Amino acid sequence: MIAEEYRFDGSRKVVIREMPTCAEPSARKKDCTARTEANLAQCALLQEKLCAAGTEGLIIAIQARDAAGKDSLVKKVFGKLNPAALEVHSFKAPSKEELSHDYLWRLNKALPARGKIGVFNRSHYEDVLVTRVHRMEKGYAMPERVIGDKDFYKKRYTQLRNWEQYLYENGYRMVKIFLNVGKDEQRRRFIDRMELPEKHWKLSINDLKERSLWKEYDAAYEDAINHTATEESPWYILPADEKWYTRFLMSEILLDVLTDMAPEYPPLDPAEAAKIPAAMAELESPLE
Amino acid sequence: MIAEEYRFDGSRKVVIREMPTCAEPSARKKDCTARTEANLAQCALLQEKLCAAGTEGLIIAIQARDAAGKDSLVKKVFGKLNPAALEVHSFKAPSKEELSHDYLWRLNKALPARGKIGVFNRSHYEDVLVTRVHRMEKGYAMPERVIGDKDFYKKRYTQLRNWEQYLYENGYRMVKIFLNVGKDEQRRRFIDRMELPEKHWKLSINDLKERSLWKEYDAAYEDAINHTATEESPWYILPADEKWYTRFLMSEILLDVLTDMAPEYPPLDPAEAAKIPAAMAELESPLE
Repeated sequence: MIAEEYRFDGSRKVVIREMPTCAEPSARKKDCTARTEANLAQCALLQEKLCAAGTEGLIIAIQARDAAGKDSLVKKVFGKLNPAALEVHSFKAPSKEELSHDYLWRLNKALPARGKIGVFNRSHYEDVLVTRVHRMEKGYAMPERVIGDKDFYKKRYTQLRNWEQYLYENGYRMVKIFLNVGKDEQRRRFIDRMELPEKHWKLSINDLKERSLWKEYDAAYEDAINHTATEESPWYILPADEKWYTRFLMSEILLDVLTDMAPEYPPLDPAEAAKIPAAMAELESPLE
Repeated sequence: MIAEEYRFDGSRKVVIREMPTCAEPSARKKDCTARTEANLAQCALLQEKLCAAGTEGLIIAIQARDAAGKDSLVKKVFGKLNPAALEVHSFKAPSKEELSHDYLWRLNKALPARGKIGVFNRSHYEDVLVTRVHRMEKGYAMPERVIGDKDFYKKRYTQLRNWEQYLYENGYRMVKIFLNVGKDEQRRRFIDRMELPEKHWKLSINDLKERSLWKEYDAAYEDAINHTATEESPWYILPADEKWYTRFLMSEILLDVLTDMAPEYPPLDPAEAAKIPAAMAELESPLE
Protein backbone atom coordinates (compact mmCIF):
# COMPACT_ATOMS: atom_id res chain seq x y z
CA MET A 1 0.00 0.00 0.00
CA ILE A 2 1.25 3.47 -0.92
CA ALA A 3 0.32 4.99 2.44
CA GLU A 4 2.60 2.53 4.26
CA GLU A 5 5.40 5.03 4.80
CA TYR A 6 3.00 7.35 6.64
CA ARG A 7 1.81 4.57 8.94
CA PHE A 8 2.69 4.28 12.64
CA ASP A 9 1.74 1.12 14.48
CA GLY A 10 4.06 1.28 17.46
CA SER A 11 7.06 -0.24 15.70
CA ARG A 12 8.81 3.14 15.28
CA LYS A 13 8.61 6.61 16.83
CA VAL A 14 7.32 9.64 15.00
CA VAL A 15 8.99 13.04 14.87
CA ILE A 16 6.37 15.33 13.35
CA ARG A 17 8.75 17.94 11.88
CA GLU A 18 10.53 15.19 9.94
CA MET A 19 7.32 14.07 8.26
CA PRO A 20 6.47 15.49 4.82
CA THR A 21 3.67 18.00 4.41
CA CYS A 22 3.83 17.82 0.59
CA ALA A 23 3.04 15.13 -1.96
CA GLU A 24 5.71 12.73 -3.12
CA PRO A 25 7.63 14.42 -5.98
CA SER A 26 6.74 11.55 -8.31
CA ALA A 27 2.99 11.77 -7.66
CA ARG A 28 0.89 13.13 -10.52
CA LYS A 29 -2.35 14.87 -9.61
CA LYS A 30 -4.28 13.42 -12.55
CA ASP A 31 -3.25 9.84 -11.80
CA CYS A 32 -3.88 10.17 -8.09
CA THR A 33 -7.32 11.67 -8.64
CA ALA A 34 -8.29 8.84 -10.97
CA ARG A 35 -7.08 6.25 -8.47
CA THR A 36 -8.92 7.99 -5.66
CA GLU A 37 -12.16 7.63 -7.62
CA ALA A 38 -11.49 3.95 -8.32
CA ASN A 39 -10.53 3.25 -4.72
CA LEU A 40 -13.67 4.88 -3.36
CA ALA A 41 -15.89 2.96 -5.76
CA GLN A 42 -14.42 -0.24 -4.35
CA CYS A 43 -14.83 1.09 -0.81
CA ALA A 44 -18.52 1.70 -1.46
CA LEU A 45 -18.97 -1.94 -2.49
CA LEU A 46 -17.16 -3.15 0.60
CA GLN A 47 -19.20 -0.77 2.75
CA GLU A 48 -22.39 -2.42 1.50
CA LYS A 49 -21.08 -5.84 2.52
CA LEU A 50 -19.93 -4.48 5.87
CA CYS A 51 -23.43 -3.20 6.49
CA ALA A 52 -25.11 -6.40 5.30
CA ALA A 53 -22.89 -8.51 7.58
CA GLY A 54 -23.33 -6.17 10.54
CA THR A 55 -20.55 -7.81 12.55
CA GLU A 56 -17.78 -5.21 12.40
CA GLY A 57 -17.71 -1.45 12.69
CA LEU A 58 -15.06 0.96 11.47
CA ILE A 59 -14.04 4.24 13.07
CA ILE A 60 -11.90 6.87 11.34
CA ALA A 61 -10.65 9.53 13.74
CA ILE A 62 -9.30 12.67 12.08
CA GLN A 63 -7.06 15.13 13.91
CA ALA A 64 -5.27 18.17 12.57
CA ARG A 65 -4.27 21.75 13.06
CA ASP A 66 -6.75 24.40 11.96
CA ALA A 67 -7.18 24.77 8.21
CA ALA A 68 -5.47 21.44 7.54
CA GLY A 69 -8.47 20.23 5.57
CA LYS A 70 -10.52 18.00 7.89
CA ASP A 71 -13.90 19.20 6.69
CA SER A 72 -13.09 18.95 3.02
CA LEU A 73 -11.56 15.50 3.47
CA VAL A 74 -14.78 14.29 5.07
CA LYS A 75 -16.86 15.84 2.30
CA LYS A 76 -14.77 14.68 -0.65
CA VAL A 77 -13.77 11.19 0.50
CA PHE A 78 -16.52 9.98 2.83
CA GLY A 79 -19.13 11.75 0.74
CA LYS A 80 -18.60 8.97 -1.82
CA LEU A 81 -19.94 6.33 0.56
CA ASN A 82 -23.56 5.44 1.28
CA PRO A 83 -24.72 7.89 3.97
CA ALA A 84 -27.15 5.27 5.34
CA ALA A 85 -24.24 3.26 6.73
CA LEU A 86 -22.04 6.22 7.60
CA GLU A 87 -22.07 8.60 10.56
CA VAL A 88 -20.00 11.76 10.86
CA HIS A 89 -19.52 13.24 14.31
CA SER A 90 -17.76 16.57 14.77
CA PHE A 91 -16.37 17.20 18.21
CA LYS A 92 -16.19 20.88 19.11
CA ALA A 93 -15.28 22.45 22.46
CA PRO A 94 -17.13 20.32 25.03
CA SER A 95 -20.46 21.53 26.39
CA LYS A 96 -21.10 21.99 30.09
CA GLU A 97 -22.97 18.68 30.18
CA GLU A 98 -20.06 16.94 28.45
CA LEU A 99 -17.54 18.48 30.84
CA SER A 100 -19.46 17.15 33.81
CA HIS A 101 -18.96 13.58 32.52
CA ASP A 102 -15.83 11.53 31.83
CA TYR A 103 -14.14 12.75 28.63
CA LEU A 104 -14.95 9.59 26.65
CA TRP A 105 -18.66 9.97 27.42
CA ARG A 106 -19.45 11.95 24.28
CA LEU A 107 -17.27 9.63 22.20
CA ASN A 108 -19.00 6.51 23.51
CA LYS A 109 -22.39 8.01 22.69
CA ALA A 110 -21.19 8.62 19.15
CA LEU A 111 -19.89 5.11 18.46
CA PRO A 112 -21.42 3.64 15.31
CA ALA A 113 -23.36 0.38 15.42
CA ARG A 114 -21.43 -2.57 14.05
CA GLY A 115 -21.92 -2.63 10.29
CA LYS A 116 -21.39 1.11 10.00
CA ILE A 117 -18.50 3.46 9.42
CA GLY A 118 -18.12 6.30 11.90
CA VAL A 119 -16.03 9.35 11.06
CA PHE A 120 -14.84 11.48 13.97
CA ASN A 121 -13.93 15.02 12.89
CA ARG A 122 -11.66 15.72 15.87
CA SER A 123 -11.88 12.99 18.46
CA HIS A 124 -10.86 11.63 21.86
CA TYR A 125 -7.36 12.92 21.09
CA GLU A 126 -8.45 16.50 21.70
CA ASP A 127 -8.29 15.58 25.39
CA VAL A 128 -4.53 15.00 25.20
CA LEU A 129 -3.81 17.73 22.62
CA VAL A 130 -5.54 21.08 23.08
CA THR A 131 -6.23 20.19 26.72
CA ARG A 132 -2.55 19.49 27.30
CA VAL A 133 -1.13 22.42 25.34
CA HIS A 134 -3.33 24.85 27.28
CA ARG A 135 -3.08 22.90 30.60
CA MET A 136 -6.87 22.94 30.66
CA GLU A 137 -7.15 19.93 32.96
CA LYS A 138 -6.67 22.34 35.89
CA GLY A 139 -9.94 24.05 35.07
CA TYR A 140 -12.06 20.91 35.05
CA ALA A 141 -14.30 19.95 37.94
CA MET A 142 -12.46 16.83 39.04
CA PRO A 143 -11.06 15.75 42.37
CA GLU A 144 -7.52 16.80 43.30
CA ARG A 145 -6.35 13.15 43.18
CA VAL A 146 -7.09 13.31 39.43
CA ILE A 147 -6.05 16.79 38.31
CA GLY A 148 -3.10 16.94 40.71
CA ASP A 149 -1.72 13.63 39.45
CA LYS A 150 1.71 14.17 37.88
CA ASP A 151 0.98 11.18 35.60
CA PHE A 152 -2.26 12.77 34.40
CA TYR A 153 -1.41 12.53 30.68
CA LYS A 154 0.48 9.26 30.95
CA LYS A 155 -2.66 7.76 32.45
CA ARG A 156 -4.77 9.28 29.68
CA TYR A 157 -2.60 7.62 27.03
CA THR A 158 -3.10 4.29 28.78
CA GLN A 159 -6.84 4.98 29.01
CA LEU A 160 -7.00 5.72 25.29
CA ARG A 161 -5.02 2.61 24.43
CA ASN A 162 -7.27 0.48 26.64
CA TRP A 163 -10.41 1.99 25.15
CA GLU A 164 -9.25 1.34 21.60
CA GLN A 165 -8.20 -2.18 22.56
CA TYR A 166 -11.65 -2.75 24.07
CA LEU A 167 -13.29 -1.59 20.87
CA TYR A 168 -11.09 -3.89 18.81
CA GLU A 169 -12.01 -6.80 21.07
CA ASN A 170 -15.67 -5.96 20.52
CA GLY A 171 -15.74 -5.93 16.77
CA TYR A 172 -14.45 -2.48 15.84
CA ARG A 173 -11.47 -1.26 13.85
CA MET A 174 -10.07 2.19 14.31
CA VAL A 175 -7.77 4.21 12.08
CA LYS A 176 -6.36 7.51 13.30
CA ILE A 177 -5.37 10.21 10.87
CA PHE A 178 -3.24 13.30 11.45
CA LEU A 179 -3.41 15.78 8.60
CA ASN A 180 0.05 17.27 8.53
CA VAL A 181 -0.23 20.74 7.04
CA GLY A 182 2.84 22.95 6.67
CA LYS A 183 3.19 26.37 8.28
CA ASP A 184 3.24 28.21 4.95
CA GLU A 185 0.25 26.41 3.55
CA GLN A 186 -1.70 27.05 6.75
CA ARG A 187 -0.84 30.77 6.49
CA ARG A 188 -2.13 30.85 2.89
CA ARG A 189 -5.39 29.19 3.92
CA PHE A 190 -5.88 31.60 6.83
CA ILE A 191 -5.32 34.55 4.48
CA ASP A 192 -7.95 33.07 2.14
CA ARG A 193 -10.37 32.89 5.02
CA MET A 194 -9.79 36.55 5.77
CA GLU A 195 -9.99 37.71 2.16
CA LEU A 196 -12.73 35.58 0.62
CA PRO A 197 -16.30 36.30 1.78
CA GLU A 198 -17.40 32.70 1.13
CA LYS A 199 -14.73 31.55 3.56
CA HIS A 200 -15.49 34.04 6.33
CA TRP A 201 -17.72 31.52 8.10
CA LYS A 202 -14.64 29.38 8.68
CA LEU A 203 -12.63 32.26 10.11
CA SER A 204 -11.90 32.44 13.80
CA ILE A 205 -9.20 34.92 14.75
CA ASN A 206 -8.57 32.83 17.85
CA ASP A 207 -7.34 29.97 15.63
CA LEU A 208 -4.47 32.16 14.53
CA LYS A 209 -3.10 32.33 18.05
CA GLU A 210 -2.60 28.58 18.05
CA ARG A 211 0.05 29.05 15.33
CA SER A 212 2.42 30.46 17.93
CA LEU A 213 2.09 27.14 19.78
CA TRP A 214 3.24 25.12 16.76
CA LYS A 215 6.08 23.37 18.62
CA GLU A 216 3.94 22.66 21.66
CA TYR A 217 1.39 20.97 19.41
CA ASP A 218 4.16 19.02 17.70
CA ALA A 219 5.27 17.71 21.08
CA ALA A 220 1.72 16.88 22.16
CA TYR A 221 1.01 15.05 18.89
CA GLU A 222 4.25 13.11 19.11
CA ASP A 223 3.56 11.98 22.65
CA ALA A 224 -0.03 11.06 21.86
CA ILE A 225 0.87 9.18 18.68
CA ASN A 226 3.88 7.40 20.13
CA HIS A 227 1.83 6.20 23.11
CA THR A 228 -1.24 5.07 21.19
CA ALA A 229 -0.08 3.79 17.80
CA THR A 230 -0.74 0.03 17.69
CA GLU A 231 -1.06 -2.67 15.08
CA GLU A 232 -4.85 -2.78 15.65
CA SER A 233 -5.37 1.00 15.84
CA PRO A 234 -2.62 2.61 13.79
CA TRP A 235 -1.95 6.29 13.15
CA TYR A 236 -1.28 7.79 9.73
CA ILE A 237 0.53 11.14 9.42
CA LEU A 238 -0.63 12.37 6.03
CA PRO A 239 0.90 15.26 4.07
CA ALA A 240 -1.89 17.82 3.84
CA ASP A 241 -0.55 20.68 1.71
CA GLU A 242 -2.11 19.33 -1.50
CA LYS A 243 -5.66 18.18 -0.93
CA TRP A 244 -5.73 15.86 -3.95
CA TYR A 245 -2.82 13.92 -2.48
CA THR A 246 -4.33 13.70 1.02
CA ARG A 247 -7.59 12.41 -0.46
CA PHE A 248 -5.72 9.86 -2.50
CA LEU A 249 -3.89 8.55 0.58
CA MET A 250 -7.11 8.51 2.61
CA SER A 251 -8.80 6.45 -0.11
CA GLU A 252 -5.86 4.01 -0.10
CA ILE A 253 -6.06 3.64 3.68
CA LEU A 254 -9.81 3.18 3.65
CA LEU A 255 -9.62 0.57 0.93
CA ASP A 256 -6.82 -1.19 2.76
CA VAL A 257 -8.65 -1.48 6.07
CA LEU A 258 -11.96 -2.50 4.45
CA THR A 259 -10.14 -5.13 2.36
CA ASP A 260 -8.48 -6.43 5.50
CA MET A 261 -11.84 -6.61 7.28
CA ALA A 262 -13.05 -8.69 4.30
CA PRO A 263 -16.80 -8.28 4.85
CA GLU A 264 -19.07 -10.77 3.09
CA TYR A 265 -22.80 -10.81 2.37
CA PRO A 266 -24.27 -13.17 4.96
CA PRO A 267 -25.50 -16.49 3.49
CA LEU A 268 -29.23 -17.15 3.22
CA ASP A 269 -30.76 -18.72 6.30
CA PRO A 270 -31.62 -22.37 5.34
CA ALA A 271 -35.10 -21.93 6.81
CA GLU A 272 -35.66 -18.94 4.52
CA ALA A 273 -34.15 -20.82 1.58
CA ALA A 274 -36.63 -23.66 2.04
CA LYS A 275 -39.50 -21.20 1.59
CA ILE A 276 -38.21 -19.89 -1.74
CA PRO A 277 -39.97 -22.34 -4.12
CA ALA A 278 -43.40 -21.62 -2.63
CA ALA A 279 -42.75 -17.88 -2.58
CA MET A 280 -41.58 -18.04 -6.18
CA ALA A 281 -44.74 -19.88 -7.23
CA GLU A 282 -46.87 -17.27 -5.47
CA LEU A 283 -45.06 -14.43 -7.21
CA GLU A 284 -45.67 -16.15 -10.56
CA SER A 285 -49.43 -16.56 -10.08
CA PRO A 286 -51.47 -13.49 -11.10
CA LEU A 287 -52.67 -11.15 -8.38
CA GLU A 288 -56.47 -11.19 -7.89
CA MET B 1 -17.31 -0.73 59.31
CA ILE B 2 -19.75 -3.58 59.89
CA ALA B 3 -19.93 -4.53 56.20
CA GLU B 4 -16.15 -5.13 56.11
CA GLU B 5 -16.45 -8.91 56.30
CA TYR B 6 -18.60 -8.92 53.15
CA ARG B 7 -16.09 -6.78 51.24
CA PHE B 8 -13.86 -8.09 48.44
CA ASP B 9 -11.15 -5.82 47.10
CA GLY B 10 -8.85 -8.34 45.45
CA SER B 11 -6.97 -9.28 48.62
CA ARG B 12 -8.84 -12.61 48.99
CA LYS B 13 -10.90 -14.91 46.77
CA VAL B 14 -14.62 -15.40 47.17
CA VAL B 15 -16.44 -18.75 47.27
CA ILE B 16 -20.10 -17.84 47.00
CA ARG B 17 -21.52 -20.91 48.72
CA GLU B 18 -19.41 -20.16 51.78
CA MET B 19 -20.86 -16.67 52.14
CA PRO B 20 -23.82 -16.17 54.48
CA THR B 21 -27.28 -15.50 53.09
CA CYS B 22 -28.71 -14.68 56.55
CA ALA B 23 -28.14 -11.87 59.04
CA GLU B 24 -25.51 -12.16 61.76
CA PRO B 25 -27.09 -14.03 64.68
CA SER B 26 -26.36 -11.10 66.98
CA ALA B 27 -28.07 -8.54 64.73
CA ARG B 28 -31.38 -7.17 66.05
CA LYS B 29 -33.91 -5.98 63.49
CA LYS B 30 -35.02 -2.98 65.56
CA ASP B 31 -31.47 -1.73 66.11
CA CYS B 32 -30.44 -2.25 62.51
CA THR B 33 -33.50 -0.45 61.20
CA ALA B 34 -32.83 2.53 63.44
CA ARG B 35 -29.19 2.66 62.35
CA THR B 36 -30.22 2.37 58.71
CA GLU B 37 -32.37 5.49 59.09
CA ALA B 38 -29.58 7.38 60.82
CA ASN B 39 -27.01 6.30 58.22
CA LEU B 40 -29.22 7.38 55.34
CA ALA B 41 -29.89 10.77 56.90
CA GLN B 42 -26.12 11.31 57.01
CA CYS B 43 -25.82 10.04 53.44
CA ALA B 44 -28.38 12.60 52.29
CA LEU B 45 -26.28 15.41 53.79
CA LEU B 46 -23.14 14.10 52.11
CA GLN B 47 -25.04 13.72 48.83
CA GLU B 48 -25.89 17.42 48.95
CA LYS B 49 -22.22 18.30 49.35
CA LEU B 50 -21.26 15.88 46.60
CA CYS B 51 -23.69 17.60 44.26
CA ALA B 52 -22.59 21.11 45.30
CA ALA B 53 -18.94 20.23 44.71
CA GLY B 54 -19.65 18.48 41.40
CA THR B 55 -16.18 16.96 41.19
CA GLU B 56 -16.84 13.29 41.93
CA GLY B 57 -19.53 10.85 40.88
CA LEU B 58 -20.57 7.62 42.58
CA ILE B 59 -21.88 4.48 40.90
CA ILE B 60 -23.56 1.64 42.78
CA ALA B 61 -23.94 -1.48 40.62
CA ILE B 62 -26.36 -4.07 41.97
CA GLN B 63 -26.33 -7.65 40.79
CA ALA B 64 -28.34 -10.59 42.08
CA ARG B 65 -30.35 -13.67 41.30
CA ASP B 66 -34.06 -13.17 40.63
CA ALA B 67 -36.15 -12.27 43.67
CA ALA B 68 -33.07 -11.39 45.70
CA GLY B 69 -34.49 -7.93 46.39
CA LYS B 70 -32.79 -5.51 43.97
CA ASP B 71 -35.90 -3.44 43.31
CA SER B 72 -36.89 -3.11 46.94
CA LEU B 73 -33.31 -2.23 47.94
CA VAL B 74 -33.30 0.61 45.42
CA LYS B 75 -36.69 1.83 46.64
CA LYS B 76 -36.04 1.60 50.37
CA VAL B 77 -32.43 2.74 50.54
CA PHE B 78 -31.84 5.06 47.59
CA GLY B 79 -35.38 6.39 47.91
CA LYS B 80 -34.09 8.26 50.98
CA LEU B 81 -31.73 10.38 48.90
CA ASN B 82 -32.52 13.51 46.91
CA PRO B 83 -33.79 12.30 43.53
CA ALA B 84 -32.45 15.45 41.85
CA ALA B 85 -28.88 14.19 42.31
CA LEU B 86 -29.67 10.50 41.85
CA GLU B 87 -30.21 8.43 38.71
CA VAL B 88 -31.46 4.85 38.66
CA HIS B 89 -30.87 2.82 35.52
CA SER B 90 -32.33 -0.67 35.16
CA PHE B 91 -30.63 -2.84 32.58
CA LYS B 92 -32.96 -5.44 31.06
CA ALA B 93 -32.25 -7.82 28.18
CA PRO B 94 -30.46 -5.67 25.60
CA SER B 95 -32.43 -4.19 22.71
CA LYS B 96 -31.52 -4.81 19.09
CA GLU B 97 -29.89 -1.37 18.94
CA GLU B 98 -27.88 -2.11 22.08
CA LEU B 99 -26.79 -5.50 20.74
CA SER B 100 -25.46 -3.87 17.59
CA HIS B 101 -23.06 -1.78 19.70
CA ASP B 102 -20.28 -2.73 22.09
CA TYR B 103 -21.72 -4.05 25.36
CA LEU B 104 -20.57 -1.07 27.43
CA TRP B 105 -22.36 1.35 25.10
CA ARG B 106 -25.59 1.40 27.07
CA LEU B 107 -23.64 1.64 30.32
CA ASN B 108 -21.58 4.58 29.11
CA LYS B 109 -24.74 6.41 28.06
CA ALA B 110 -26.14 5.89 31.55
CA LEU B 111 -23.12 7.23 33.46
CA PRO B 112 -24.09 9.98 35.89
CA ALA B 113 -22.54 13.42 35.69
CA ARG B 114 -19.94 14.09 38.35
CA GLY B 115 -21.74 15.28 41.46
CA LYS B 116 -24.45 12.65 41.14
CA ILE B 117 -25.05 9.13 42.37
CA GLY B 118 -25.95 6.56 39.72
CA VAL B 119 -27.59 3.28 40.69
CA PHE B 120 -27.37 0.45 38.19
CA ASN B 121 -30.06 -2.19 38.76
CA ARG B 122 -28.21 -4.99 36.97
CA SER B 123 -25.13 -3.71 35.20
CA HIS B 124 -22.15 -4.37 32.94
CA TYR B 125 -21.72 -7.64 34.83
CA GLU B 126 -24.72 -9.16 33.05
CA ASP B 127 -22.36 -9.52 30.08
CA VAL B 128 -20.14 -11.95 32.00
CA LEU B 129 -22.96 -13.63 33.96
CA VAL B 130 -26.15 -14.48 32.08
CA THR B 131 -24.25 -14.20 28.79
CA ARG B 132 -21.65 -16.67 30.04
CA VAL B 133 -24.01 -19.14 31.71
CA HIS B 134 -26.10 -19.40 28.53
CA ARG B 135 -23.11 -19.09 26.18
CA MET B 136 -24.95 -16.28 24.47
CA GLU B 137 -21.85 -14.72 22.97
CA LYS B 138 -22.19 -17.18 20.10
CA GLY B 139 -25.46 -15.57 19.07
CA TYR B 140 -24.12 -12.04 18.85
CA ALA B 141 -23.28 -10.39 15.56
CA MET B 142 -19.53 -10.11 16.04
CA PRO B 143 -16.58 -11.22 13.95
CA GLU B 144 -15.24 -14.74 14.43
CA ARG B 145 -11.95 -13.36 15.81
CA VAL B 146 -14.01 -12.09 18.76
CA ILE B 147 -16.62 -14.78 19.44
CA GLY B 148 -14.27 -17.63 18.56
CA ASP B 149 -11.60 -16.36 20.98
CA LYS B 150 -10.99 -18.95 23.71
CA ASP B 151 -10.07 -16.07 26.04
CA PHE B 152 -13.38 -14.31 25.38
CA TYR B 153 -14.39 -13.99 29.04
CA LYS B 154 -10.87 -13.48 30.33
CA LYS B 155 -10.65 -10.50 27.99
CA ARG B 156 -14.01 -9.24 29.19
CA TYR B 157 -12.82 -9.27 32.81
CA THR B 158 -9.80 -7.22 31.78
CA GLN B 159 -12.06 -4.86 29.82
CA LEU B 160 -14.30 -4.38 32.86
CA ARG B 161 -11.33 -3.78 35.13
CA ASN B 162 -9.88 -1.25 32.69
CA TRP B 163 -13.22 0.51 32.34
CA GLU B 164 -13.68 0.82 36.09
CA GLN B 165 -10.08 2.00 36.47
CA TYR B 166 -10.70 4.60 33.77
CA LEU B 167 -13.76 5.85 35.64
CA TYR B 168 -11.81 6.03 38.89
CA GLU B 169 -9.10 8.03 37.14
CA ASN B 170 -11.78 10.40 35.86
CA GLY B 171 -13.44 11.25 39.14
CA TYR B 172 -15.81 8.35 39.76
CA ARG B 173 -16.11 5.77 42.51
CA MET B 174 -17.84 2.48 41.95
CA VAL B 175 -19.18 -0.02 44.44
CA LYS B 176 -20.47 -3.37 43.28
CA ILE B 177 -23.09 -5.25 45.25
CA PHE B 178 -24.12 -8.90 44.98
CA LEU B 179 -27.30 -9.67 46.88
CA ASN B 180 -26.75 -13.21 48.08
CA VAL B 181 -30.16 -14.82 48.51
CA GLY B 182 -30.49 -18.43 49.68
CA LYS B 183 -32.21 -21.15 47.67
CA ASP B 184 -35.02 -21.59 50.21
CA GLU B 185 -35.72 -17.90 50.56
CA GLN B 186 -35.79 -17.53 46.78
CA ARG B 187 -38.29 -20.41 46.58
CA ARG B 188 -40.54 -18.71 49.14
CA ARG B 189 -40.44 -15.44 47.21
CA PHE B 190 -41.26 -17.18 43.92
CA ILE B 191 -44.22 -18.93 45.57
CA ASP B 192 -45.41 -15.52 46.82
CA ARG B 193 -45.22 -14.19 43.30
CA MET B 194 -47.39 -17.05 42.09
CA GLU B 195 -49.92 -16.83 44.91
CA LEU B 196 -50.31 -13.11 45.56
CA PRO B 197 -52.13 -11.11 42.87
CA GLU B 198 -50.23 -7.91 43.77
CA LYS B 199 -46.96 -9.74 43.02
CA HIS B 200 -48.05 -11.29 39.72
CA TRP B 201 -46.48 -8.43 37.77
CA LYS B 202 -43.09 -9.57 39.04
CA LEU B 203 -43.67 -13.18 38.00
CA SER B 204 -41.86 -14.64 35.04
CA ILE B 205 -42.02 -18.42 34.84
CA ASN B 206 -38.80 -18.29 32.85
CA ASP B 207 -36.97 -16.98 35.93
CA LEU B 208 -37.69 -20.26 37.67
CA LYS B 209 -35.63 -22.17 35.11
CA GLU B 210 -32.54 -20.24 36.15
CA ARG B 211 -32.77 -21.93 39.57
CA SER B 212 -31.54 -25.16 38.00
CA LEU B 213 -28.40 -23.27 36.95
CA TRP B 214 -27.60 -22.23 40.53
CA LYS B 215 -24.07 -23.71 40.50
CA GLU B 216 -23.28 -22.31 37.07
CA TYR B 217 -24.22 -18.85 38.31
CA ASP B 218 -22.11 -19.36 41.44
CA ALA B 219 -19.14 -20.15 39.22
CA ALA B 220 -19.79 -17.18 36.93
CA TYR B 221 -20.15 -14.80 39.89
CA GLU B 222 -17.00 -16.11 41.51
CA ASP B 223 -14.96 -15.65 38.35
CA ALA B 224 -16.37 -12.20 37.71
CA ILE B 225 -15.88 -11.03 41.30
CA ASN B 226 -12.41 -12.52 41.70
CA HIS B 227 -11.25 -10.89 38.46
CA THR B 228 -12.73 -7.45 39.08
CA ALA B 229 -12.63 -6.82 42.83
CA THR B 230 -10.17 -3.98 43.45
CA GLU B 231 -9.38 -1.50 46.19
CA GLU B 232 -10.92 1.29 44.09
CA SER B 233 -13.96 -0.67 42.87
CA PRO B 234 -14.70 -3.30 45.53
CA TRP B 235 -17.44 -5.93 45.56
CA TYR B 236 -19.71 -6.62 48.53
CA ILE B 237 -21.50 -9.98 48.84
CA LEU B 238 -24.46 -9.14 51.05
CA PRO B 239 -26.72 -11.64 52.81
CA ALA B 240 -30.14 -11.07 51.26
CA ASP B 241 -32.55 -13.38 53.07
CA GLU B 242 -33.67 -10.67 55.51
CA LYS B 243 -34.31 -7.38 53.76
CA TRP B 244 -33.88 -5.24 56.87
CA TYR B 245 -30.35 -6.58 57.25
CA THR B 246 -29.43 -6.05 53.58
CA ARG B 247 -30.68 -2.47 53.77
CA PHE B 248 -28.70 -1.87 56.92
CA LEU B 249 -25.50 -3.13 55.28
CA MET B 250 -26.19 -1.12 52.13
CA SER B 251 -26.62 2.02 54.23
CA GLU B 252 -23.33 1.31 56.02
CA ILE B 253 -21.52 0.86 52.70
CA LEU B 254 -23.04 3.99 51.20
CA LEU B 255 -22.13 6.05 54.25
CA ASP B 256 -18.62 4.60 54.22
CA VAL B 257 -17.89 5.45 50.59
CA LEU B 258 -19.44 8.93 50.82
CA THR B 259 -17.45 9.62 53.99
CA ASP B 260 -14.31 8.49 52.24
CA MET B 261 -15.06 10.76 49.27
CA ALA B 262 -15.37 13.59 51.83
CA PRO B 263 -17.28 16.07 49.64
CA GLU B 264 -17.26 19.71 50.78
CA TYR B 265 -19.37 22.69 49.80
CA PRO B 266 -17.18 24.69 47.42
CA PRO B 267 -15.90 27.96 48.89
CA LEU B 268 -17.32 31.23 47.66
CA ASP B 269 -15.55 32.66 44.63
CA PRO B 270 -13.62 35.77 45.88
CA ALA B 271 -15.04 37.81 43.00
CA GLU B 272 -18.56 36.90 44.13
CA ALA B 273 -17.66 37.53 47.77
CA ALA B 274 -16.53 41.05 46.90
CA LYS B 275 -19.99 41.79 45.52
CA ILE B 276 -21.78 40.76 48.70
CA PRO B 277 -21.80 44.13 50.57
CA ALA B 278 -23.40 45.95 47.65
CA ALA B 279 -25.89 43.15 47.07
CA MET B 280 -26.74 43.14 50.78
CA ALA B 281 -27.34 46.89 50.73
CA GLU B 282 -29.59 46.53 47.70
CA LEU B 283 -31.61 43.80 49.40
CA GLU B 284 -32.04 46.05 52.42
CA SER B 285 -33.34 49.02 50.50
CA PRO B 286 -37.10 48.95 49.84
CA LEU B 287 -38.35 47.80 46.43
CA GLU B 288 -40.00 50.55 44.35
